[in-house]
Amino acid sequence: MDSQFRQNRLTGEWVIFSPSRRRRPMDFVRDLKPSNLQEYDSECPFCPGNEQKLSKIAYEVRSKDKATWATRAVYNKYPALTVNGRHSRNLSGPYLSGNGYGSHLVILESPRHDLQLSIMDREDLVVVVESYHHCYSMLAQDPNIMLIMLFKNYGESAGASLYHPHSQVVASAVVPRFIREREREEQRYFDEYGRCAMCDIIEFEINEAKRVIFQNQNFVIFVPFAAEVPCELWIVPKKHSADFNDISEVEKVSLAECLEVVMKKMSNRLNNPDYNFALNSCTRYKNNEPQLHWYLRIVPRLTTRAGFEIGSG
Amino acid sequence: MDSQFRQNRLTGEWVIFSPSRRRRPMDFVRDLKPSNLQEYDSECPFCPGNEQKLSKIAYEVRSKDKATWATRAVYNKYPALTVNGRHSRNLSGPYLSGNGYGSHLVILESPRHDLQLSIMDREDLVVVVESYHHCYSMLAQDPNIMLIMLFKNYGESAGASLYHPHSQVVASAVVPRFIREREREEQRYFDEYGRCAMCDIIEFEINEAKRVIFQNQNFVIFVPFAAEVPCELWIVPKKHSADFNDISEVEKVSLAECLEVVMKKMSNRLNNPDYNFALNSCTRYKNNEPQLHWYLRIVPRLTTRAGFEIGSG
Repeated sequence: MDSQFRQNRLTGEWVIFSPSRRRRPMDFVRDLKPSNLQEYDSECPFCPGNEQKLSKIAYEVRSKDKATWATRAVYNKYPALTVNGRHSRNLSGPYLSGNGYGSHLVILESPRHDLQLSIMDREDLVVVVESYHHCYSMLAQDPNIMLIMLFKNYGESAGASLYHPHSQVVASAVVPRFIREREREEQRYFDEYGRCAMCDIIEFEINEAKRVIFQNQNFVIFVPFAAEVPCELWIVPKKHSADFNDISEVEKVSLAECLEVVMKKMSNRLNNPDYNFALNSCTRYKNNEPQLHWYLRIVPRLTTRAGFEIGSG
Repeated sequence: MDSQFRQNRLTGEWVIFSPSRRRRPMDFVRDLKPSNLQEYDSECPFCPGNEQKLSKIAYEVRSKDKATWATRAVYNKYPALTVNGRHSRNLSGPYLSGNGYGSHLVILESPRHDLQLSIMDREDLVVVVESYHHCYSMLAQDPNIMLIMLFKNYGESAGASLYHPHSQVVASAVVPRFIREREREEQRYFDEYGRCAMCDIIEFEINEAKRVIFQNQNFVIFVPFAAEVPCELWIVPKKHSADFNDISEVEKVSLAECLEVVMKKMSNRLNNPDYNFALNSCTRYKNNEPQLHWYLRIVPRLTTRAGFEIGSG
């Protein structure tokens, strides 16, 4: 059975109903830290030489010496969404559903099994950021795609099932309600004050200098005022921009520097925690709107989500 | 420092900023299953005889033989919210905050350290449901309280820090955005069809009989069409009712029967998984509205929340 979108009519939330994802492999062992790992794992589908375990390769950047690849994007073998079938809606009784139209890529961030972002050098990280952008742009070309979400799950408690350094990109024909809600709130703020909320926030944070962790010419990193978890961090472009797709070459280098700072600090000061990050960019047709501002949200898994958060779902 | 509400101006989400909660104890050991447990644990603050480790007792039901208590509500020693100070708002730069006004109770569901809901008998569960209702009613009397959330975290991965059988009740002066969104969607459905969405859903589910797990005279249990996690279950009153506070005596007994069925099935068929449940009732002033319908949502922790869900926050 192909995956479906299904809507909860009480909340408006769209979820992905995808039976095939239950069959994906799990090789993640708790407390498997980089120091225990080899550069190459013969069982890992993402390591060079094991390509027969992969589905199709979507994109590849060669290494500087051209001997191997530096980063790669592959189609997820257990995709949450696929471009099979048309984007559609179906009403059955009180329920609304639709084809799970979209794409699901995995970006391999290094050929080395053990080279996590926290131990990469600046040059490697620039290539990683360039690959994020390339995949984002590529998926944005499909007019049926409403939203592109780039995210990383690091560690078992963050939902990672394979260790080899990778991020994921899901391109989706529907917009989750959290994104809608964020866009609505940013619109409301703009209507009230005539300014972008995030532009106001970064100006305030830079002046206050209480929660800022790092800044360079193009980005600022800070702990958000209303962090949802301890040590949550946002990396925000200083220039107003709704869409990650519009990032410039020089901003990519600045963003790589920010990633280097954040990953090394998390690894050193928080003892290499599990974490998620997510690129919060705008939905299609909103890339020029004055109230939206993209940012990268990093959420370490230091505590367990429970109770109040679950209860409010 | 007392806890605060803090608002994320991009999403409208209110979070609870509560430094004192970092000091709470953690005695939960992974894989500690009921079979390994004693009836009494001298280190457990919730076991009878250890009351010096508790903060104030709010409410108590005596056991049938009057020798001890059957259930108890105690003020959380590490509360997320307290009634200290007034309910207020504070604007600072682009940020909105307010006192963390509210209450945080723990309902001890048994004097026995090892008596989880799944091994209680019907009579015990009726007393548990009555205690839920009593605490709910008690907290609803404070006119500053906008929302009462009753929930249970069972197991470490569900966020429980103590094993002794207990649930929690948080009474809050602000409404989380997920609740607002749900109320908005239920309003939208009512505007479109002139009927309560949940009433339509349970009628459809009972007719289809595909996802219904159990029903009795007053309640139906089913897997929701757009479940967010595998084996998610909803226990829904058949009679239209916005507010759990309005539950009748006979409905309490019916609900206890449903809890018995759900807890035994989860324990037997899913191997006693960690889980959360949450009572989704209406916010203050909405208890008579025709579009809202309370329900109990049960979310087993069989998989890890990640990626798409985090990314959409």
